Amino acid sequence: MPFSAFPNVKATMVISCMDPRANPNEFWAFSETSPVQPAVLRNAGGRVTEDTLRSIRVLSGIMGNGKNTVGAVAVVHHADCGLRNFSDERVGELLGERAGLDEGKKGEVGGMWFGSFSGDATLEKSVREDMEKIKADPYLPRDLEVIGYTYDGTTGKTTEVGVL
Amino acid sequence: MPFSAFPNVKATMVISCMDPRANPNEFWAFSETSPVQPAVLRNAGGRVTEDTLRSIRVLSGIMGNGKNTVGAVAVVHHADCGLRNFSDERVGELLGERAGLDEGKKGEVGGMWFGSFSGDATLEKSVREDMEKIKADPYLPRDLEVIGYTYDGTTGKTTEVGVL
Repeated sequence: MPFSAFPNVKATMVISCMDPRANPNEFWAFSETSPVQPAVLRNAGGRVTEDTLRSIRVLSGIMGNGKNTVGAVAVVHHADCGLRNFSDERVGELLGERAGLDEGKKGEVGGMWFGSFSGDATLEKSVREDMEKIKADPYLPRDLEVIGYTYDGTTGKTTEVGVL
Repeated sequence: MPFSAFPNVKATMVISCMDPRANPNEFWAFSETSPVQPAVLRNAGGRVTEDTLRSIRVLSGIMGNGKNTVGAVAVVHHADCGLRNFSDERVGELLGERAGLDEGKKGEVGGMWFGSFSGDATLEKSVREDMEKIKADPYLPRDLEVIGYTYDGTTGKTTEVGVL
């Protein structure tokens, strides 16, 4: 898989999918001698959730000593993500079967938010939506930069979507 | 840093801290030829939160085709974690200063849960607590195995805490 230098040395956090193919340490070259050793957040889809915001707040606080502040956060969504191929409803249906849930709980998982992208036409759109969730957090530093990327595992390339 | 083979080939998900020093791909040897390519969840502390449960539910559903089911989840907490050195109150206080929050919002972050371990005497205790949160989730397969580990970055060693 091709490696490239991390495109923004200010970025001290990266958010990506749990998928083994979406490991930031594989698509960007973070070595022990890299200028940055970013904190890495990963969950299903690389979605910005309340827990993602908690983690960004934690690092913003702990690193808030004026020397090593959190300058930027990078949000990455990758092509061929499982959550692009399955709707929330379908994930819930499959989970209900696999977990052997009773009818009541099947109904509950049938209505859950699993972070599916299936309603989004493009990777760029969901990246921008999740970037905006970070930018809208009232508890984060106003000067925190949010950078969006898409990643294509077949080419090993990240593409910048924009900066907020 | 020493590498070792992943101790349980059934584990298809690993939960660890966002800290660059707590990267499961560095403390366990997952290569392209490994028997497993686990999904990796990372957040502040490697805590089991609602978002962690969402991600485990997603994979349990998507991989619920009878061929590649999620057999086990590994929870790892690491020594010298920032969230062991700062209480929730202290993280909130630092965040309020760093983010330049007004008095009202400083009060809000002062009462937030940031996932601090500062009340926990040992790594083993917090690992067990988080393992139990997964085991208690009513929407996950009953046969999902939960394995706990501690990780010490100075020795590069993981130590099994237990299995639920």
